[in-house]
Amino acid sequence: MKDYAQIRQEVEKTLQELSLWKGEPQALYLPAVYALGQGGKRIRPVLALMACQLFGKECSQALMPAVGLEVFHNFTLLHDDVMDKAAVRHGLPTVHVKWNANTAILSGDAMFAAASSLVAKAPQECLSAVLDAFHRLALGVCEGQQYDMNFETQTTVSMAEYMEMIRLKTAVLIAGSLEIGALCAGASASDVKCLYNYGNQIGLAFQLQDDWLDLYADEAKFGKRIGGDIRENKKTYLYIRAIENLDAEDRRKLEQWFSTATTKENETEKIAAVKALFEKANAHNACQEAVNQLFAQAETDLKSLASHVDAPALQELQSFTANLLGREF
Amino acid sequence: MKDYAQIRQEVEKTLQELSLWKGEPQALYLPAVYALGQGGKRIRPVLALMACQLFGKECSQALMPAVGLEVFHNFTLLHDDVMDKAAVRHGLPTVHVKWNANTAILSGDAMFAAASSLVAKAPQECLSAVLDAFHRLALGVCEGQQYDMNFETQTTVSMAEYMEMIRLKTAVLIAGSLEIGALCAGASASDVKCLYNYGNQIGLAFQLQDDWLDLYADEAKFGKRIGGDIRENKKTYLYIRAIENLDAEDRRKLEQWFSTATTKENETEKIAAVKALFEKANAHNACQEAVNQLFAQAETDLKSLASHVDAPALQELQSFTANLLGREF
Repeated sequence: MKDYAQIRQEVEKTLQELSLWKGEPQALYLPAVYALGQGGKRIRPVLALMACQLFGKECSQALMPAVGLEVFHNFTLLHDDVMDKAAVRHGLPTVHVKWNANTAILSGDAMFAAASSLVAKAPQECLSAVLDAFHRLALGVCEGQQYDMNFETQTTVSMAEYMEMIRLKTAVLIAGSLEIGALCAGASASDVKCLYNYGNQIGLAFQLQDDWLDLYADEAKFGKRIGGDIRENKKTYLYIRAIENLDAEDRRKLEQWFSTATTKENETEKIAAVKALFEKANAHNACQEAVNQLFAQAETDLKSLASHVDAPALQELQSFTANLLGREF
Repeated sequence: MKDYAQIRQEVEKTLQELSLWKGEPQALYLPAVYALGQGGKRIRPVLALMACQLFGKECSQALMPAVGLEVFHNFTLLHDDVMDKAAVRHGLPTVHVKWNANTAILSGDAMFAAASSLVAKAPQECLSAVLDAFHRLALGVCEGQQYDMNFETQTTVSMAEYMEMIRLKTAVLIAGSLEIGALCAGASASDVKCLYNYGNQIGLAFQLQDDWLDLYADEAKFGKRIGGDIRENKKTYLYIRAIENLDAEDRRKLEQWFSTATTKENETEKIAAVKALFEKANAHNACQEAVNQLFAQAETDLKSLASHVDAPALQELQSFTANLLGREF
């Protein structure tokens, strides 16, 4: 069994050594190398490999599909950053800022093609199932991004709509990574489903935690400025819960702030005022409570595996996801 | 054996009936339906199905991958039109004009995912080979588009560079469609290679013919205005050949025109002057000659098949490609 550090190292090494990135024209491949070189926790391939080794198989069985999932994730970031006009990621200029929008579009497309070709290196006996999972998650992520963009111009977004959006935009890729890792190991359909459900809860929790961290994170550690979602009038869990919980007058105030563009002059006041309204509505605690519930549900989902998977490998997976969510394990 | 009309009808029917396009959110899928509904000759899926039936197999073996190739082709058009700022296609507004650039990017991504999932419906026994061909062609098309964009700011483009660009941007998808159709029919490696080479020549010829048609087409039939490439200072076969053939003074004049933005005031004079320079360099005849040579080479490539493939199916393929190139068969 490999631990997180070992798995992560194998993912990094494989990503770096892909001969693809050395191809011509370099104008196409350099932005991919740049985006993939920015690190991060490599959550998706790590989850795929951790799922694979649960079933007593070598990680190498799922290595190429796992790396493909990381390339896919980074492709979505290139395109999302164009669509969302995001200028900074991991503290560095995004591809469309460092180069231009056309580069981000086309290098992203090449990354999607490369990701598909890596996923297609799954073991022959599970290839169709892996591809099916990959195409489902790829379409899901597009659907999620579309809902997210729709929400920008939609006056009201219900909590159910929001949860469905983050399920598609974030959770299906987390769940799909576990699914693909398990499929590569030849896991049974019920075990695959169990890991998918686990990943779905973890993915939802991860996004809600991210919504909460927008206001309560340690700024240095979080890597982005506090209040970014408020600055962009983003309808997150905190906003939607607050709208639900506040009385008519406060709701009107909150809606007022969210229909006002953020400027250098108003931003300090705006973030403080919105934060106060969120807290008045108890949205911040509701958010933490939701994360806790999802995390507990995820742990329960995993129980049926405990009887027949590799125990240290299961512990490694649980401790990794707990760590992701800042929870104790 | 099915003829072109029957094959085309089957492609149209399958494309229209894909349940995918009825999914939610409709904002994601409607642009795909719009783009795919604009018709065209369905060259790529038709070639895939014609290749399949050469080997005595039912077209249905290759139907889903063939339709996937059409969806893939249309995905590249959505993104290319954003990158090239093209406003009109098939006489209708492009997706990024009718909706916006974000829609064209994201619906394009979803079409790429859908295309991959259709290609992955190839028969189990040839799945890996089909996927390999698909991923090679997908990366090739991205590389071709990158070279094409590079050429815009490159002062000189050699004929070798140009031919490599159109090989990647256009020919690999034509060749790959024939390859995938043949693979789905279980054709031998040498027959697959032979069809690939055939497709490559046809694809190159098709692009050079398109370069020529920019000046010499019947405007109504061609579906775009004459001289579009000149208007956009596009370095096509005609331009590159003319630069090679003209004396220093005429070359300077041509370069001068191509470093001048086209305006309402200068466009009639510019197109006439550039056309005259092209003709002085005999570039228009050289282009037709190159198409003839490629077409003849393609016919020769095909000869090794004649001994063992279905003769009427071979004739149908040859007459379809001859027709594409406006050549007699």
